[in-house]
Amino acid sequence: MLGTFCVRVCSGFRATSCVRTLHSLPGITVAQIDEEVAKLLELKVRLGGDDGKHQFVLKTAKGTRDYNPKQMAIREKVFNTIISCFKRHGAETIDTPVFELKETLTGKYGEDSKLIYDLKDQGGELLSLRYDLTVPFARYLAMNKITNIKRYHIAKVYRRDNPAMTRGRYREFYQCDFDIAGQYDAMIPDAECLKIVHEILSELDLGDFRIKVNDRRILDGMFAVCGVPDDKFRTICSTVDKLDKMPWEEVKKEMVNEKGLSEEAADQIGEYVSMQGGMDLAERLLQDQKMSQSKLACAGLSDIKLLFSYLQLFQVTDKVVFDLSLARGLDYYTGIIYEAVLTQAGVAPVSNEAQNGTNAEESVNVGSVAGGGRYDGLVGMFDPKGRKVPCVGVSIGIERVFSIMEQKAEASAEKVRTTEVQVMVASAQKNLLEERLRLVTELWNAGIKAEVMYKMNPKLLSQLQYCEEAGIPLVAILGEQELKDGVVKLRVVATREEMDIARTDLISEIRRRTSEA
Amino acid sequence: MLGTFCVRVCSGFRATSCVRTLHSLPGITVAQIDEEVAKLLELKVRLGGDDGKHQFVLKTAKGTRDYNPKQMAIREKVFNTIISCFKRHGAETIDTPVFELKETLTGKYGEDSKLIYDLKDQGGELLSLRYDLTVPFARYLAMNKITNIKRYHIAKVYRRDNPAMTRGRYREFYQCDFDIAGQYDAMIPDAECLKIVHEILSELDLGDFRIKVNDRRILDGMFAVCGVPDDKFRTICSTVDKLDKMPWEEVKKEMVNEKGLSEEAADQIGEYVSMQGGMDLAERLLQDQKMSQSKLACAGLSDIKLLFSYLQLFQVTDKVVFDLSLARGLDYYTGIIYEAVLTQAGVAPVSNEAQNGTNAEESVNVGSVAGGGRYDGLVGMFDPKGRKVPCVGVSIGIERVFSIMEQKAEASAEKVRTTEVQVMVASAQKNLLEERLRLVTELWNAGIKAEVMYKMNPKLLSQLQYCEEAGIPLVAILGEQELKDGVVKLRVVATREEMDIARTDLISEIRRRTSEA
Repeated sequence: MLGTFCVRVCSGFRATSCVRTLHSLPGITVAQIDEEVAKLLELKVRLGGDDGKHQFVLKTAKGTRDYNPKQMAIREKVFNTIISCFKRHGAETIDTPVFELKETLTGKYGEDSKLIYDLKDQGGELLSLRYDLTVPFARYLAMNKITNIKRYHIAKVYRRDNPAMTRGRYREFYQCDFDIAGQYDAMIPDAECLKIVHEILSELDLGDFRIKVNDRRILDGMFAVCGVPDDKFRTICSTVDKLDKMPWEEVKKEMVNEKGLSEEAADQIGEYVSMQGGMDLAERLLQDQKMSQSKLACAGLSDIKLLFSYLQLFQVTDKVVFDLSLARGLDYYTGIIYEAVLTQAGVAPVSNEAQNGTNAEESVNVGSVAGGGRYDGLVGMFDPKGRKVPCVGVSIGIERVFSIMEQKAEASAEKVRTTEVQVMVASAQKNLLEERLRLVTELWNAGIKAEVMYKMNPKLLSQLQYCEEAGIPLVAILGEQELKDGVVKLRVVATREEMDIARTDLISEIRRRTSEA
Repeated sequence: MLGTFCVRVCSGFRATSCVRTLHSLPGITVAQIDEEVAKLLELKVRLGGDDGKHQFVLKTAKGTRDYNPKQMAIREKVFNTIISCFKRHGAETIDTPVFELKETLTGKYGEDSKLIYDLKDQGGELLSLRYDLTVPFARYLAMNKITNIKRYHIAKVYRRDNPAMTRGRYREFYQCDFDIAGQYDAMIPDAECLKIVHEILSELDLGDFRIKVNDRRILDGMFAVCGVPDDKFRTICSTVDKLDKMPWEEVKKEMVNEKGLSEEAADQIGEYVSMQGGMDLAERLLQDQKMSQSKLACAGLSDIKLLFSYLQLFQVTDKVVFDLSLARGLDYYTGIIYEAVLTQAGVAPVSNEAQNGTNAEESVNVGSVAGGGRYDGLVGMFDPKGRKVPCVGVSIGIERVFSIMEQKAEASAEKVRTTEVQVMVASAQKNLLEERLRLVTELWNAGIKAEVMYKMNPKLLSQLQYCEEAGIPLVAILGEQELKDGVVKLRVVATREEMDIARTDLISEIRRRTSEA
């Protein structure tokens, strides 16, 4: 009741005059009134605005975004390029639900498990939103006892991370995965994954890139021969992983001061992780006195050699570099690992110096756009009998690609079209709605992409303006005279050229003028 | 420790023999042992199987499913048909996040709100999975102050419903929406929505269908003139909605006995809701003594007449029927509503009798496959100033369509291909892996969809069998002789025909033989 009273009293007054009016009332202090007003205003906000309309917080959830039609047009183009590549390599596709049983995700992501979105317990099963597409893929293989498949999967995944949306990092984002599962001869599917990354990044035309390659077995072997205790492999590995963001001196400091590694061991690691090259580096390390003591490292190095021989046949060695500093975070990798990074324009071809192991011409890492590796143990974690299905795969960092493409589109003068409309059916005079609807029906029925304005009597000018804005290339204009003559005036929006086309020839004329071939 | 002991004792014995052995030990009763064994077995199940492997419940969440490659191939075909239609009509597309702020969904779905999936409160905002695409669309329009858009949106939505998966009902399912927002002249966009439903259902070739049309204003006007009290409109409306599943007698019983309507009012409603027809029925009802008393009904009836005049121009009246029994559940509709149903093969053309209002040739409703209507108030619920954006839209019941297409594919002899591979690069002898990789690279680089087996020395027969299974039409076979001669043996899988093709002509020959034109 007080609320109603006060709002009535105040209505039409600014807050200050309202307070002044009440100020002279007996037994009420200004402070009390202020307090009451504040309460009421808060209540008002909660109840709705001045006119009684509800006040919503009009936003999307933190770390998420809508895609507007322009962004969708870019997204579609990127997806088409990527999917074409996957299909060219014979991949099938699958889809899995957006949520999984919570236990399916448990114990797969180490520390990052805290980033998993759980659903509220509303009775029934405990569910979580998928964190990636790899674990659901492994669950799918085990559940359906599939031992061979080459599949791609493009879908959204969810992480309660701190979003850095300007850099293309979201809490809801796409992953775009290609994986080959099955028991095959060494390095053939692994090499095809790299071929695919090379094709996609070339076709997307994002600028120069490099694909770094390493092998978990080489890393583990290297740690062993450098004197890292077994139980420190993982933690030292994750420190090595920081080399793309930190200089060696800091990485070393972390190893020695935080992880308790001996300075000597750290220095030995430091020597190895500065090495980059190709097949020749793998050969050299196979002869390396220390490295060759590790069977594990030798197996990895032989496979790197084999990999490079296939990459030569696939014609992609120009962009691939064997880089001992590449570590990658995920626990489940068991063999080859790789990561593609965009290099700044004009920077860092794989030079001889780099191949010789110095960092003289080190490329500037402007962001990872693809990554992956071999994970031969993950499916076995889901199989009741622990049966393993060897897998190798790659994930395209599609959100970063979107960001870059959007920036490029923004910078370029060319307009991004959000529809594919070929022709607008317009009228030059009034009372021609029926004729317009009749004609647009003819066009639709012939498979022509066509639009008509949803007005009884739109102005010709506004119809033409709409075409300019939407990038529609042609206008089919109807008028009394055209109807009498059995023709349609076809206007080319770009040139403003107009010509009469016999009604019977219209469809073929539109097709001819809008065929992209 | 007891666990370890007992498991050791029992290991290698069946439960019965184990119990017998222990039976003679002093101070232990059989009952105690049974209890201990039960506890240990339970523990064992929780810890893992016999060999120490973890036991997962290998399943997807209740009411959800994976799509395998065959289902995905069908899904892609259906989506392509539908998206082509939307694009032909000039629609853009948008995407919104899978979860929204909980309050965005609050108060939009009436009783069905209990079916919304909430996310667990993990700190930060309270979130829910989207229940449909319409409310996020309205939120998007209000948030971005968009007053005109024609957009489609195909995405998954979530409902904690009781799944009936055999009938194509899931807790995670696709919606496929097309909506036109904007202030336009009456019934033009509404008619285009029906044209789109007609085009999509015709192209999907699901068998005969009918599109029922009605208008919320006609329903409300009818209730008013039949003497339904204002506060019972919604509940009586939802009873009318059951007419497609229940005979009139039962519907009437519910109105009178459960909803407390007078028998007289119910009978009057019964007369109206049995009426079906076209423009003529709308005209007749405009003259109807009772119905014409309602201004609301008259506005609706005039619009139905106008709608049918546009539908005639769009050439779709063969499938559209004005049906006063169509009610549709959602609260937010404000004008025209419609629903498309598949009719059993050969049943129920819109006969004269039906148009005259009798149900002599009533169609058997085998399921709604599309529905929609006009909702002019929803966007205003999100706008801080309550500004309205009139909208009309349609949702294609894509999951039912998938089910039907899958059944058809199952029944048909034709094999569903899950890849688009045009050619397999095979070898007739050993030691030709390098040559195969070289050739497949040439093909990939030319944009040909090609595969190679990931084996050093695959058998020719297994390569050919793979092609038969996967439906790959061509095999490019390399052998010592072919390499010498600079040719490739091209084999047509279907006919087993083989011919030597000069290596330089191979790409154009493959293109020629696999072009679909």
